[in-house]
Amino acid sequence: MSLKTAAALVIGNEILSGKIEEENLVVLARALRPLGVRLQRVIIVEDVIDEIVRAVRELSAAYDLVVTSGGVGPTHDDVTVEAVGQAFSAPVVSHPHLEAMIRGHYGSRCTDGHLRMALVPSGASLETTKDVAWPTIRMRNVWLLPGVPEIFRLKLEVLKENFGRAGPAFVTRAVYTQMDEGHLRPLLDAVVAQFPDVEVGSYPKWHHDSYKTKLTFDGQEAQRVKAACEAFVALLPDGEPQDFSE
Amino acid sequence: MSLKTAAALVIGNEILSGKIEEENLVVLARALRPLGVRLQRVIIVEDVIDEIVRAVRELSAAYDLVVTSGGVGPTHDDVTVEAVGQAFSAPVVSHPHLEAMIRGHYGSRCTDGHLRMALVPSGASLETTKDVAWPTIRMRNVWLLPGVPEIFRLKLEVLKENFGRAGPAFVTRAVYTQMDEGHLRPLLDAVVAQFPDVEVGSYPKWHHDSYKTKLTFDGQEAQRVKAACEAFVALLPDGEPQDFSE
Repeated sequence: MSLKTAAALVIGNEILSGKIEEENLVVLARALRPLGVRLQRVIIVEDVIDEIVRAVRELSAAYDLVVTSGGVGPTHDDVTVEAVGQAFSAPVVSHPHLEAMIRGHYGSRCTDGHLRMALVPSGASLETTKDVAWPTIRMRNVWLLPGVPEIFRLKLEVLKENFGRAGPAFVTRAVYTQMDEGHLRPLLDAVVAQFPDVEVGSYPKWHHDSYKTKLTFDGQEAQRVKAACEAFVALLPDGEPQDFSE
Repeated sequence: MSLKTAAALVIGNEILSGKIEEENLVVLARALRPLGVRLQRVIIVEDVIDEIVRAVRELSAAYDLVVTSGGVGPTHDDVTVEAVGQAFSAPVVSHPHLEAMIRGHYGSRCTDGHLRMALVPSGASLETTKDVAWPTIRMRNVWLLPGVPEIFRLKLEVLKENFGRAGPAFVTRAVYTQMDEGHLRPLLDAVVAQFPDVEVGSYPKWHHDSYKTKLTFDGQEAQRVKAACEAFVALLPDGEPQDFSE
């Protein structure tokens, strides 16, 4: 059962100050599951080169795939390319193909600011697909995605197509009950012991009309997930659970 | 100009799998700004003790305040208390006051699972306010908040009241323009050079009717923020900006 691991690095003072609400992580998390890739760690840092360098080094060494979000535009607070370069001791250079695309796009209105968007760490690849012609910068296992949610989603398609499927898709099942976690605990412990390969989650809901706790069962082997879910349901007292979903 | 720094640690497979959308970070970020506290780093990890221990040690040593979100319930996947204890080499013990409250609340229905919620790292404090009697666990500079958004918000009030104001509130101003970042860059560079104490942000918007780029000016000295914003506006060509806000 093959599995690849991923981490994300979100870059931007606007996220840490609450000025802009982060929207990309949940999209990334959900996009990776069908590929059999597990997002295991996220770091969010300010627009500070040293902080980004430290995080890129840590994540790039520890995970198969690293996705950065933010800091790739032309202004003073866009320092991701420079920082990723430093993380790999790679000087930042203007990429001829990107530069030509930018000059072509802006024509006579092209500024030094626009041309900053042609900068890449030396040795980086430009990734594209048939549908998304504007390249995404990849430096080894680190993919540099923009923070603007519409563009992040677009570029994520490029990543998915180029990275490909690493293993079986994760499948998930859920059960909703009226029991609280204190009473559920021994039942869950029994299922966890019996199904170490299935991830069992328990999520209480406050002030919800239809249930008190949602239980989830996740894994890469659909039959095992189903069996774990059924084993849990068999332990419930009469009248439970309220509801199932797949 | 005093300033305190903060970091957050979000704990939970449900966030990293995209099963549940993270809602607490933006609330935390916005709550800290009026206190003069700057959220500088966030780490999101799975429900894995060693990962939590490593993150707590790193953040607790580097920031004035650390807020954790998630993993404080009674089930097998709730390992935050144990991990925070390990991070400070403190054994986990049942707190008599918490235990009495839990027994009082559940009465004859009280289970071992419920009593797990009385566990705290040895040496932890219980923080309350007049309005929020159920205690919040604090271990040195680390505050353990639950991940359920309604409860996180409630406990955040306890943190705010007990932590208090560290310095002047951050103030922010915004200007919306029809210019793109490539053309804005030299104007922004001039303002950044003149106002190193004001944080200048630039946020492009795709497909927006009324503006192309939002510029923000943030700092703890209202007069300097105002001056930086005005200096930027003075550099804009005729007809710009579209709009101001405070």
